[in-house]
Amino acid sequence: MKLYDDPISGNGYKARLLLAHLSRPYRYIPIDILRGESRTPDFLKKNLNGRIPVLELDDGRCLPESNAILYFLSQGTAYWPDEAFAQAQVMQWLFFEQYSHEPNIATPRFWLKTKVLEDTPFNRELLAMKQRAGNQALAVMNEHLADRTFFVDGRYTIADIALYAYTHVADEGGFDLSLYPAVVAWLRRVREQSGHVTIKQWVSA
Amino acid sequence: MKLYDDPISGNGYKARLLLAHLSRPYRYIPIDILRGESRTPDFLKKNLNGRIPVLELDDGRCLPESNAILYFLSQGTAYWPDEAFAQAQVMQWLFFEQYSHEPNIATPRFWLKTKVLEDTPFNRELLAMKQRAGNQALAVMNEHLADRTFFVDGRYTIADIALYAYTHVADEGGFDLSLYPAVVAWLRRVREQSGHVTIKQWVSA
Repeated sequence: MKLYDDPISGNGYKARLLLAHLSRPYRYIPIDILRGESRTPDFLKKNLNGRIPVLELDDGRCLPESNAILYFLSQGTAYWPDEAFAQAQVMQWLFFEQYSHEPNIATPRFWLKTKVLEDTPFNRELLAMKQRAGNQALAVMNEHLADRTFFVDGRYTIADIALYAYTHVADEGGFDLSLYPAVVAWLRRVREQSGHVTIKQWVSA
Repeated sequence: MKLYDDPISGNGYKARLLLAHLSRPYRYIPIDILRGESRTPDFLKKNLNGRIPVLELDDGRCLPESNAILYFLSQGTAYWPDEAFAQAQVMQWLFFEQYSHEPNIATPRFWLKTKVLEDTPFNRELLAMKQRAGNQALAVMNEHLADRTFFVDGRYTIADIALYAYTHVADEGGFDLSLYPAVVAWLRRVREQSGHVTIKQWVSA
């Protein structure tokens, strides 16, 4: 398998982290999104939507969307629950992550880290709007985790992997995680899982 | 089962449409989101994130997130493919819908239909930004559908249901669908599926 990914990406990190837990070998292909490498004609054949990560199977079939990659790789493993309603709840949190969390937490981090966002009144207000919504998402997580060890079914699943990716670097997007103690405790439990790797680690053949 | 939903919602319509295809009975509970009914203490017990739709099972367990509801209800039915990679591709399009499509197509429709968006320079630029991104999502769909009947595997699945919900009313968000002929042809194929209901139809016991 090949993973097309930009090392800066938390979405790519989700796949890297699950692949590490599963000890599955893969070739890491860095794609520099700031240099437009995810929008070249060749890359658009892998993902019409021009985004990383993309998982390429040995037969050449390509799968975009980080949470679809998590779903695909986790089937039949310990990171995907057995029971139908628990599976649906994992899905609930994966969609929460892509709708309410990632656009409001990952995007401010990307803007602040890369400085790609021009300093205009509109962009300052847009950033503040996203940070307000990101804090709402963190508050939802904090309340859910107040009496739970992990997001679904008391066990570590791809729901935790998906939400960990950008939550644990939320400070880089201007968020103060100390306001969310249940989230901080959960981040520690995620880091303690066997086979954990940091966002800076990946495999390249 | 009960479906908590606002009749204006395309996200709720996804569940209504699949339930109609499956001929599954349910009680429809209208929630007026403009009057704050999805943010009451009672409703937040059903979904901490304060959003509709929510599917409530007969035993009281609640499932938020429209695409998680589609996933849950479609298991073991004709609307979910059998093969692992096709399943992952359905997921790919469900996440595309929630990340690249819905925030840019549903949100302008909501703002323009309800007139909740105050007319400020920031909001006008925000609307235009979303409409540009929404047109990019429609272009991706149009290219993907150029040589396909449905999104995945040549058959009608929950990927089509999820994407149909807000695409077929995109004109209400200021989008010109005639620019996307493959999308228009696909909308017609979706409408021709057995058991189709329109966005205005639901069941209430």
